Amino acid sequence: MNANSVKSDIEIAQAATMKPIMEIGEKVGLMPDDLELFGKYKAKLSNEALSRINRNENGKVILVTAINPTPAGEGKSTVTVGLGDALNRLGKNAMIAMREPSLGPTMGVKGGATGGGYAQVLPMEDINLHFTGDIHAITTANNALAALIDNHLQQGNELKIDQRRIVWKRVLDLNDRALRKVIIGLGGPVQGVPREDGFDITVASEVMAVLCLANDLQDLKKKLGKMVIAYNIDRQPVTVSDLGAEGALALLLKEAVKPNIVQTLEHTPALIHGGPFANIAHGCNSVIATKAAAKLADYVVTEAGFGADLGAEKFLHIKARSAGIKPEAVVIVATVRALKMHGGLRKDQLATEDIEALTTGFANLKKHVETIESFGLPFVVAINRFVHDTDNELKVLSALCDQYQIPYAMTEVWEHGGEGGILLAEKVLKLIDNKQSNFEALYNIKDSLEEKINAIAKKVYGAGQVDFTAKARKQMQDFTAQGWSSLPICMAKTQYSLSDDPAKLGRPEDFSITIRELKPSIGAGFIVALTGDVMTMPGLPKAPAAMKMDVDENGNAIGLF
Amino acid sequence: MNANSVKSDIEIAQAATMKPIMEIGEKVGLMPDDLELFGKYKAKLSNEALSRINRNENGKVILVTAINPTPAGEGKSTVTVGLGDALNRLGKNAMIAMREPSLGPTMGVKGGATGGGYAQVLPMEDINLHFTGDIHAITTANNALAALIDNHLQQGNELKIDQRRIVWKRVLDLNDRALRKVIIGLGGPVQGVPREDGFDITVASEVMAVLCLANDLQDLKKKLGKMVIAYNIDRQPVTVSDLGAEGALALLLKEAVKPNIVQTLEHTPALIHGGPFANIAHGCNSVIATKAAAKLADYVVTEAGFGADLGAEKFLHIKARSAGIKPEAVVIVATVRALKMHGGLRKDQLATEDIEALTTGFANLKKHVETIESFGLPFVVAINRFVHDTDNELKVLSALCDQYQIPYAMTEVWEHGGEGGILLAEKVLKLIDNKQSNFEALYNIKDSLEEKINAIAKKVYGAGQVDFTAKARKQMQDFTAQGWSSLPICMAKTQYSLSDDPAKLGRPEDFSITIRELKPSIGAGFIVALTGDVMTMPGLPKAPAAMKMDVDENGNAIGLF
Repeated sequence: MNANSVKSDIEIAQAATMKPIMEIGEKVGLMPDDLELFGKYKAKLSNEALSRINRNENGKVILVTAINPTPAGEGKSTVTVGLGDALNRLGKNAMIAMREPSLGPTMGVKGGATGGGYAQVLPMEDINLHFTGDIHAITTANNALAALIDNHLQQGNELKIDQRRIVWKRVLDLNDRALRKVIIGLGGPVQGVPREDGFDITVASEVMAVLCLANDLQDLKKKLGKMVIAYNIDRQPVTVSDLGAEGALALLLKEAVKPNIVQTLEHTPALIHGGPFANIAHGCNSVIATKAAAKLADYVVTEAGFGADLGAEKFLHIKARSAGIKPEAVVIVATVRALKMHGGLRKDQLATEDIEALTTGFANLKKHVETIESFGLPFVVAINRFVHDTDNELKVLSALCDQYQIPYAMTEVWEHGGEGGILLAEKVLKLIDNKQSNFEALYNIKDSLEEKINAIAKKVYGAGQVDFTAKARKQMQDFTAQGWSSLPICMAKTQYSLSDDPAKLGRPEDFSITIRELKPSIGAGFIVALTGDVMTMPGLPKAPAAMKMDVDENGNAIGLF
Repeated sequence: MNANSVKSDIEIAQAATMKPIMEIGEKVGLMPDDLELFGKYKAKLSNEALSRINRNENGKVILVTAINPTPAGEGKSTVTVGLGDALNRLGKNAMIAMREPSLGPTMGVKGGATGGGYAQVLPMEDINLHFTGDIHAITTANNALAALIDNHLQQGNELKIDQRRIVWKRVLDLNDRALRKVIIGLGGPVQGVPREDGFDITVASEVMAVLCLANDLQDLKKKLGKMVIAYNIDRQPVTVSDLGAEGALALLLKEAVKPNIVQTLEHTPALIHGGPFANIAHGCNSVIATKAAAKLADYVVTEAGFGADLGAEKFLHIKARSAGIKPEAVVIVATVRALKMHGGLRKDQLATEDIEALTTGFANLKKHVETIESFGLPFVVAINRFVHDTDNELKVLSALCDQYQIPYAMTEVWEHGGEGGILLAEKVLKLIDNKQSNFEALYNIKDSLEEKINAIAKKVYGAGQVDFTAKARKQMQDFTAQGWSSLPICMAKTQYSLSDDPAKLGRPEDFSITIRELKPSIGAGFIVALTGDVMTMPGLPKAPAAMKMDVDENGNAIGLF
């Protein structure tokens, strides 16, 4: 491929011809009245449609996960889209269920979360900008709650909230480091009660996690009511229900809770809905979207954030368990480039063939394969080809897979769309037909918090030992006393390493992991275990992506990607 | 009318049957492809539609304004809607152009800005909640700019911004007093540069004013580029263009800049778009919406915020001038209740007949009548009937109007919708047919800032004298040196009084008004003159309206109004 002829993602997206979303919906049995249109190419599924399709049979859920991410990129979203397209090319009725992107990283450095090359969801511009407003509604609900809390302090503090122990933070869907630590309420008695506060990015809000784990609007309201916002002067938790605000929050979210339908470049229907952080939260699109896709299609391809140690583990222990979703197969995405980084290369060394680095780095893939096996799930590795991969490297990687009897398929979805995912799709279909999914959690939900954390760290990460700080031990006691010990764990750990040290690539062994602190997300229904400082409000780089963005006279985006 | 049989606004709205917005659009020549749907009952006008209708003739613009508002309510939005409906009942092709409501006041105390009773725009729930996301896009653009400014400081501050003189504030579309004065950037060198900051409500953002005064997307971008964000260490203004962010901001606003079409209870098409604060900004819906409505309909009924001293003055001197809109007639809304308050009664005394208070309070209406006359505009007073007005009171008010040869009409639009506005509509039509609009500004745009402020204070408010603080005098010098003196003035004054003292109701005379400070809104294209502390971030009351809000099992709003 000639580098000059390579089109950018946005060029490919803008050159594409979309079909009206009504037509896309019809393919999976959605009538015009089932769709609440946002322009011609985006829609929300109506509450009536969601109720009606609930009577349908469940399609089969295929989870796409990956090795630990590196700066080389592995293309998990791209494979997710390409696999959906490939399944449709093979005559199957397939849908995709993905997260919606956050504007903060888009304006910063990241690029979109809508796939890439010829495996994208459209309209890419809209999805990467405001889409159907879901994240704005979450920002609003989160901050309306914050305003109500501070107003409660101002108006007499009937609930006896300890203003030093308010845990509810404000959010913006932006990268804005200057808001990480702030003091609010300055200016005298009529301007509020002064206190320390901070802003997170919206996708780190518990409201986002709650929306993504809710089964419907009423369940959403119930979960919102359970969110802990502060502790009172007796150190007892104060919830949204105590404040009486869950009705208003649910009202603000009544449209956001409906899943969004769009299409891929090849007109495969895709539900894009919800996008919680994959560290402080569980990193998967909404339960409502995944379940709706399974009711509409025979095969649903969905992804989870980061590598299998974080995303797949949380998909399985948190989302799948709470929603009763049973995945039939798992795709583990790996690239030669990323494995070479796991084998010790720097990003600027990736253009050169390096069999040794590849072979060393393969250990990272192997660990994730073992993890998925331990969940009792059939799987296939997708070797996602990049332009500079040499035939020799690909041959060696295939041989390594063969050596360990790891099923694999080459994909070229970035360059060839669904056609580049046919081999993978055929493998996945064969897997589903021939291999029973015996999904089993790696811990019993009734285990103690410590036991559950140990199970994840040892079985999924390969840690030899788990250390708890005194603070974390005290919190485990307190949370157990509160009756919260039967919730699943949501680990907050670096995505770059199986360990809690982002520099340890490949497959670190016999390491110990430290649990510094716990955080209750009672509304979402999990206990976050933090292994280090987790960034919940990113910063902008020296040259933010926003500086290249513009809009032409016809209203088309420029420089979005 | 039996009080028990009175339905709430939301009950009336939810019981209404809307027509598909495509059908509403067809009435004024909009084809299905001209509309970008948001569900069945809301749409944005496409860029193509806006370009095409630009070739149409201009319809006649009717401005609805009012006496100084009181807690008794005057019903300006309700009359605007009712008049539009009445014109259609009389066989005319009429449209309405109104502001979109802000969520902050909705969650606080205020109630909707979508009319009331049987003169409402629909879908009322959606319009009062997230509508089509315009205000969220403005929040995002405003705060993306703030993040870019703080990132510029963090990354070396090439523009030499004086961090004590950053004038760009962050915003949220909420009432949140604790954010009025904050310190940001705490936590050490990687968490930003510490500085004083504050949040406004989104509708007070200059981005909102810019969007409402832009003629199209490219004009929007140009105006965004001119916004002053800070002063550098040489005390020179730093603009969005200096930072290079106007492209990204325009991109974030490319959908928000398109006007929204909805319908009234009687299926009159209404463009609802933009809603800047009426104190720190100019308080009118967007130029794009008013102009589009004038291209689509023969008659456009539009309103401006607060009383004629603020809203109409700014509509005429800022919006109409910059957009080249020439109103053909003005409706001045007054109520017996509000005039009685201007005559000295308290809110709890309004149920009793009081001719003396009414007669005294009439002076307020008379002053606004004189102001509109001085602009050379034909006008009619709408006496908006309330249930408790006595026949005697209405007779006295009519007699007062007759005595001063003030044309008037009774309206009962809240109770009877368009039918209740027929008398008014007939008067307005007669006025337009028989009386020439000789619109002339009350000052020359080339006058000095001081002369322009004097003209407004003396001619519109009736002030005897204008005092400038030393700071304001210094700013007038500086702004003139910057080349900003040929911009119009946007007065920030209490809406409750013609003077700068909210307690002085009725028609205060020989008062002096103090200009404390000026604020340049160079993007929007006006200089704000502040006569006192202007609240740009409201607070919540002891019992916020949000606490009564909820959503039922079918996703319908409860307790919204």
